[in-house]
Amino acid sequence: MNSYQKLEKIFARQTGICNASAILQWDNATVMPQGSGESRAEQLTILAELAHETITSPELPDLFNNAQMQKGELDQWQQANLHEMQRIWQHATALPTDLVAELTKAGHESELFWRSARKENDFKGFAPYQKRVLQLVRESAQAKSSALGLSPYDALIDQYDPGTKSDFIDGIFNDLADFLPEFTGQVIERQKSQTPPLQINDNVSKAAQKELGIEFMQKLGFDFSQGRLDESTHPFCGGVVGDVRITTRYDEKDFLSGFFGVMHETGHALYEMHLPKELRMQPVGQARGMAFHESQSLFTEMQLCIRKEFLQYAAPYMRKTLNKNGDEWHEDNIYKLMTQVTPSFIRVDADEVTYPAHIILRYRLERQLIDGTLEVEDLPDAWNEQMRLLLGIVPDNYANGCMQDIHWTDGSFGYFPSYTLGAMIAAQLFNSIEKAIPEINSVIRNGEFRQIYSWLHQNVHCLGSKYSSQDLLLKASGENLNINYYKNHLKTRYLAD
Amino acid sequence: MNSYQKLEKIFARQTGICNASAILQWDNATVMPQGSGESRAEQLTILAELAHETITSPELPDLFNNAQMQKGELDQWQQANLHEMQRIWQHATALPTDLVAELTKAGHESELFWRSARKENDFKGFAPYQKRVLQLVRESAQAKSSALGLSPYDALIDQYDPGTKSDFIDGIFNDLADFLPEFTGQVIERQKSQTPPLQINDNVSKAAQKELGIEFMQKLGFDFSQGRLDESTHPFCGGVVGDVRITTRYDEKDFLSGFFGVMHETGHALYEMHLPKELRMQPVGQARGMAFHESQSLFTEMQLCIRKEFLQYAAPYMRKTLNKNGDEWHEDNIYKLMTQVTPSFIRVDADEVTYPAHIILRYRLERQLIDGTLEVEDLPDAWNEQMRLLLGIVPDNYANGCMQDIHWTDGSFGYFPSYTLGAMIAAQLFNSIEKAIPEINSVIRNGEFRQIYSWLHQNVHCLGSKYSSQDLLLKASGENLNINYYKNHLKTRYLAD
Repeated sequence: MNSYQKLEKIFARQTGICNASAILQWDNATVMPQGSGESRAEQLTILAELAHETITSPELPDLFNNAQMQKGELDQWQQANLHEMQRIWQHATALPTDLVAELTKAGHESELFWRSARKENDFKGFAPYQKRVLQLVRESAQAKSSALGLSPYDALIDQYDPGTKSDFIDGIFNDLADFLPEFTGQVIERQKSQTPPLQINDNVSKAAQKELGIEFMQKLGFDFSQGRLDESTHPFCGGVVGDVRITTRYDEKDFLSGFFGVMHETGHALYEMHLPKELRMQPVGQARGMAFHESQSLFTEMQLCIRKEFLQYAAPYMRKTLNKNGDEWHEDNIYKLMTQVTPSFIRVDADEVTYPAHIILRYRLERQLIDGTLEVEDLPDAWNEQMRLLLGIVPDNYANGCMQDIHWTDGSFGYFPSYTLGAMIAAQLFNSIEKAIPEINSVIRNGEFRQIYSWLHQNVHCLGSKYSSQDLLLKASGENLNINYYKNHLKTRYLAD
Repeated sequence: MNSYQKLEKIFARQTGICNASAILQWDNATVMPQGSGESRAEQLTILAELAHETITSPELPDLFNNAQMQKGELDQWQQANLHEMQRIWQHATALPTDLVAELTKAGHESELFWRSARKENDFKGFAPYQKRVLQLVRESAQAKSSALGLSPYDALIDQYDPGTKSDFIDGIFNDLADFLPEFTGQVIERQKSQTPPLQINDNVSKAAQKELGIEFMQKLGFDFSQGRLDESTHPFCGGVVGDVRITTRYDEKDFLSGFFGVMHETGHALYEMHLPKELRMQPVGQARGMAFHESQSLFTEMQLCIRKEFLQYAAPYMRKTLNKNGDEWHEDNIYKLMTQVTPSFIRVDADEVTYPAHIILRYRLERQLIDGTLEVEDLPDAWNEQMRLLLGIVPDNYANGCMQDIHWTDGSFGYFPSYTLGAMIAAQLFNSIEKAIPEINSVIRNGEFRQIYSWLHQNVHCLGSKYSSQDLLLKASGENLNINYYKNHLKTRYLAD
């Protein structure tokens, strides 16, 4: 066995441990008895330690050196795999064990306190927890900065969206921040002048919602012999390659949010289901970071499903299956309902147009928090200022403002930009597919969705982490990330359509 | 941290890994998508390797030596824990890694072939697989024999029921083998002279069966905040301490077998639920072997639930909940149905009286197979001979004979005696409870089952593996295993009642 093969074996073991954790986490969120949390935490902590020990074993530096020297004998996939292994190893070894343990503990305590503090709007009580977490994240960012040769904040981004740098995001997000306020105003004015959509007041049973969700998952290509649909408080796409498990939350009074939620997670799932199977235990066989992952869920939800042609296919099907006949169930009305724009305080409830403003706000503030140019006690004012600037509204309390998200509470800084980068990638990919399938509108109207996903399987999914996200987008679409596709998508949908 | 504490940490880690596996195995049997077997096998193999590596690390011999020298400073629980750790370590280190891997592989292949060969009654095709597995088990038994200072077959028993030896089982089983044929004949004659029970031909929906099962689980003390009831092809009690998951199989045409199956697994579950919580990550906190575990399921199923007083409580409840009024649903008829005795070929379908004969047969044959005094090619004849001797019938094919069980196919020799030892322990424990609760009949008739389980929690469950199974029975019942309790139970139920 040569050094590269030894590395493959080590990383396969790490993947196996992480996969076991992923199933246990799914179990935790869906079927675990409520009193079993302590025993589950014990299992997950031990598996996390084992995964970390596996890839920080002292033999790795030599193996990497030898494998680098034999690089000429490796094929392209293997070279890419070696590159990914080293990136993962660099992240894992950058931090002293004590710091990892301290951050895990502080993050856990802070998140726990936040859950009740948010309800009580208690920023003052929460601030010390957040400060402690931030302090440890700053230390981690410094350590990763030295190990990876990136700026501290870029080193944090690299955990979620490898290779993407804040200088690049700055350009994109500043452009978007210039565009959005005026655009949003125009959209709101336009919608004011139109007849408002009819609200759907019908109850739809959980069972009926589930059945319809499953049918559309299958129409899009979800393979139930390798995956499941379940319920959880917070919807997610979990499980592992070969066993992909999405969840949703049903509200009998809000059919549409459940349905499009399932479609969103199905987009994530189809990515996982078409990663290269034979490389499923290797780093190169995993999805290409969170921005690309979010591009796949938003492609399905925003590019495909909230589209007139899709609703021309889906709405009659919904009316028939659910036995609904009112005008509010007409495709035009559903489209109107799903494209209403209103600035609001809560990110997860935001519409397609105002969502990016929420992200830009968080991106700007977390950069400053990591750089040390913003401190936790000044966060509420900074938050409100950005909110006013980007969305023209100011929250009346902390719970609707800087205390709404879980991300920072446990130290997940660097994740937020992925959401909006994903939305842009989705728009760019949809444009490429439009070029490849000129009759795409009738394809969608006829429910032939698999044609569209074939293109994604071939140009994105089956490539795993073979290329950087920049190169992957370039190969798939023929261009680097170009914000105009996203702007044009918004303009067409909200001002012209 | 002293040596004993270091050992505690190592074994807690091993328990955590095994617990993660237990949940993944439950998932496998209940909710896993059918096409995800390969990815699950990868996870389980890696966790098994990690668990093995954890307790065979080279530092253990020194830690054990030091801990032994400091034994005086350990309390009784810690001393018992140290003893259990050493036993587990001796088993784990007795076999060369290659032999473990070979046996796992051969067992897997053999079991796989057996699944189809049994359907086709193909003993000739299956024999080479079984021979290969037997050969490797003989080698393992030899290796464990040297490491543990036990005879080869006793070393195999020790894996499932620590401390129990075949000389002891010989005595018990020979006594029983002398008793059973004549006794069974008497029971059959007696039952022939009585009016036969009415068959239950009503369908009972899965949903109604599940609801009733859950209600009775709760009446017996099953805590659903720390456990679940699900469906699987083969019923089992799985999960971990603090998260106990039992399964069943519903046949809408056979309500009783489903109901008493759930009660059987509930007996296992109540043991797991009342093991000492604070020691759940240590070997001493685990259940005391398979014979005691089976004693708890058989206590619930055979000693408690198939009892006139229980049915006087349960049958009216069943009739009301299921809305059934026919005479076949009367408690006397259900009791008669559940106590009918007929010698038959298949162990898992056998009644209470003929079941032990199936076990004695397997025990005698597997001893010979391990000793080398019986070879696989001679197994069918030896099987049929013992069947004729013990049950007076001879199977017409291999599927109904020596190919019916899964145990030997994958190398699980030494497990079978636990079933009947468990039945005897159950009878002896019930006798002790009768002494402790003189009004037990009315307690049962009134559905006050928790009084009975309190006794078990206190005298068996909460002691984990603090004592050997022999000492545990002695402490709980005041006597060593005494076969007369079991014989008297059978005589009372089948000849006097």
